[in-house]
Amino acid sequence: MRIVMTGAAGMIGRKLTTRLLDVGKIGDTRFEELHLVDIVEPEDPGDDRVSTAAGDITVSGVADELAALDADVVFHLAGVVSGEAELDLDKGLAVNLDGTRAVLDALRRAPGCPRVVFTSSIAVFGAPFPEVIPDEFHLTPLTSYGAEKAMGELLLADYSRRGLIDGIGIRLPTISVRPGAPNAAASGFFSGIIREPLAGLEAVLPVPRDLVHTHASPRSAINYLMHAAALDGDRVGARRNLTMPGVAVSVGEQIEALERVAGPEPVSLIREESDELVAEIVAGWPTRFDARRAADLGFESEPDYDAIIRAHIEDELTP
Amino acid sequence: MRIVMTGAAGMIGRKLTTRLLDVGKIGDTRFEELHLVDIVEPEDPGDDRVSTAAGDITVSGVADELAALDADVVFHLAGVVSGEAELDLDKGLAVNLDGTRAVLDALRRAPGCPRVVFTSSIAVFGAPFPEVIPDEFHLTPLTSYGAEKAMGELLLADYSRRGLIDGIGIRLPTISVRPGAPNAAASGFFSGIIREPLAGLEAVLPVPRDLVHTHASPRSAINYLMHAAALDGDRVGARRNLTMPGVAVSVGEQIEALERVAGPEPVSLIREESDELVAEIVAGWPTRFDARRAADLGFESEPDYDAIIRAHIEDELTP
Repeated sequence: MRIVMTGAAGMIGRKLTTRLLDVGKIGDTRFEELHLVDIVEPEDPGDDRVSTAAGDITVSGVADELAALDADVVFHLAGVVSGEAELDLDKGLAVNLDGTRAVLDALRRAPGCPRVVFTSSIAVFGAPFPEVIPDEFHLTPLTSYGAEKAMGELLLADYSRRGLIDGIGIRLPTISVRPGAPNAAASGFFSGIIREPLAGLEAVLPVPRDLVHTHASPRSAINYLMHAAALDGDRVGARRNLTMPGVAVSVGEQIEALERVAGPEPVSLIREESDELVAEIVAGWPTRFDARRAADLGFESEPDYDAIIRAHIEDELTP
Repeated sequence: MRIVMTGAAGMIGRKLTTRLLDVGKIGDTRFEELHLVDIVEPEDPGDDRVSTAAGDITVSGVADELAALDADVVFHLAGVVSGEAELDLDKGLAVNLDGTRAVLDALRRAPGCPRVVFTSSIAVFGAPFPEVIPDEFHLTPLTSYGAEKAMGELLLADYSRRGLIDGIGIRLPTISVRPGAPNAAASGFFSGIIREPLAGLEAVLPVPRDLVHTHASPRSAINYLMHAAALDGDRVGARRNLTMPGVAVSVGEQIEALERVAGPEPVSLIREESDELVAEIVAGWPTRFDARRAADLGFESEPDYDAIIRAHIEDELTP
C-alpha cells in the first residue's frame, strides 16, 4: 500500500505523519510507502518508508505527478487558511478550489480509484443556525474559505459517485488545544485561553463566557483522518462529506474544565478584555452540531473538554 | 440601463428576450440596450435596443468582453444540460463550472457591481428527501450537472457577500409544458404527456401515476427571472440562492388537469408503458418543496396544474 499526503508540512500533516509511521497501517493493511508533499518540503522523519518533496499543486503538472504515484490512499490536506483566503480571494481560489480540483482531476484521470480523504471544515456553514445543526443543514458559508471548501466537497462527492475516486470529506470542528505560538486567527483564543495559562503565560479572553462552540483535539483530528482512510465507502453511500463530532461547550465551561484538570492557578492568568470585532466574527460561526452520521460510522470525539485538555498535556507538555 | 444575456439562443433565453422587449424595463427602470450572446449567434429580433453575438464563455477573453460592456443586469443562462453534462464530464465542468466562473470572475474584476441572475436547478438536490424539502435542506446532487450548478451557486453567493457582484441564483423546478419536439431527457415525459396529446399525437407515460414532481411553466420561469432581476438584494440577505416555487402534482393529477382543460380526447392518447430506467432515474429526483423564502420575496408560481396547461395553450397553441 502506498500513501500520498498533500499539505504534509502543516500541523495536522506532521501529526498525521507521526501517527501513520507509528501505526504502520490503514485499517488492517500495512503500507510500504508514504510520500509527503507540501509547498515547502516537509521535514524528513528519517524512516525508510517516507519520501518527501516540495510541490505546489497550483502549478500545472504537479498534481499529475502525484496521481502517477498510483497511491491507494491520498490525504489531501493542502490549503490556504481561512484568514488568508479572506484577505486574498485569488490566492484562496487558486489553492483551495483550483488546487483541490487539480488533485481530484489528476486522480480521476489516472487508472486507480484511491481513497481520497479531504479535510473540509465547519466553515462551510454560515449563520443563521438552528440551536443544533443537523447533518441535513444546508451550506451557506460566510467566508471565501468556507465557499471553497464546500466546492471541494461537491467535486469530491461527484467524482466518487461516478466511481472515479473513492472520496471521504471530513468537516473538522475548531481544533483546540492548538499547539505552538498564538496566531492572529479570530478563533485563536479558543486554544489560547488553555494553552497559554498551562505554560504560565497570560491569555486574553475577547468574548463573553456564554459563547458556545464545538471543539476537537488535534489527536481527534488525526483519529478522524485515520478512520476516514479505512472507512467502507459503501456504508457511507453517496453523501461523502461528513460533519465530524466534537465537544460543544461554552467558553465558561472550557475554563471550568481547565480548573478541574490543572487547578486554580492557570485560570487566574485569563484576562477578560472584550473585542467587538472578534465577537462579531465569532457570532457568525456555528455553535453546536448533531453529527449523527459520523457517529454512526464510528467517528468518536473526546467525551468532554477535560479530556481535550488532558490530551493537550499528554501530547504537547509531557516530555 | 444595459442588459447582457448569456445562453440567449436557448428556449428560456428566447422567451426572456421576447418578454424583456415587450416590457421594456427591469422593475421600474427602462433599459436602452440588450446584448444577447450564445455559442451560436442568437436570432436578431429586429429591435433597435438589441445587439447579438456568437461567443463561447469557455474561451479565454470572451467573459472579459462581456464584463467590459459594464451591464447593470446580467442574465447568466448559458449551460450544458443535465444529460449532456452526465455523458461528458469534462464538457459539463468546462461550461457549467469554468464558464460560470469565467463570467463571475470577469464581472467581479470589472468596476461595476451588476445584478447577476443565475439559473440554477432543483438538480442541486439529491435523494433521500424528506416528504417536503425545506429551504434549509442540504445540497447533495446526484448528477454532475447538479454538482456544477451547486458550485456556481457558492461562487455567486460568495462574490455577492464580498460586494463584487450582486447575484441572485434561482433554482428552477422542472419546466413543463416545454414547447417543441420531444427530447431524450429522462424528464421529457412530464411535458410530453401534455404537449403531444394536445397536438393530437400519442404520448408514452413511462412511470406510475402516483409519482409526484414539482413543475413551473416556461411563463413562470420568465416571471422568476424578471422578478429576480429587480429584487432588493438587502431583502435577500447573504443567502443568495433561492428554490423557486412550483406546482407539486402527481402524474395522475397532471392527467386529470389535462382532462379538465381539454376534455377526454387528448387523455386517450396517453399510453402507459413502464420504463424501469426512467423510473429509477426519476426516483432520485426531488418531489415537493416548501419554497417559503422565494414566496416571501414575491416569487409566484401558477396556482395549479390546470393553469400550467392553460399557459401552454395560450403561449404556444394560440396563433
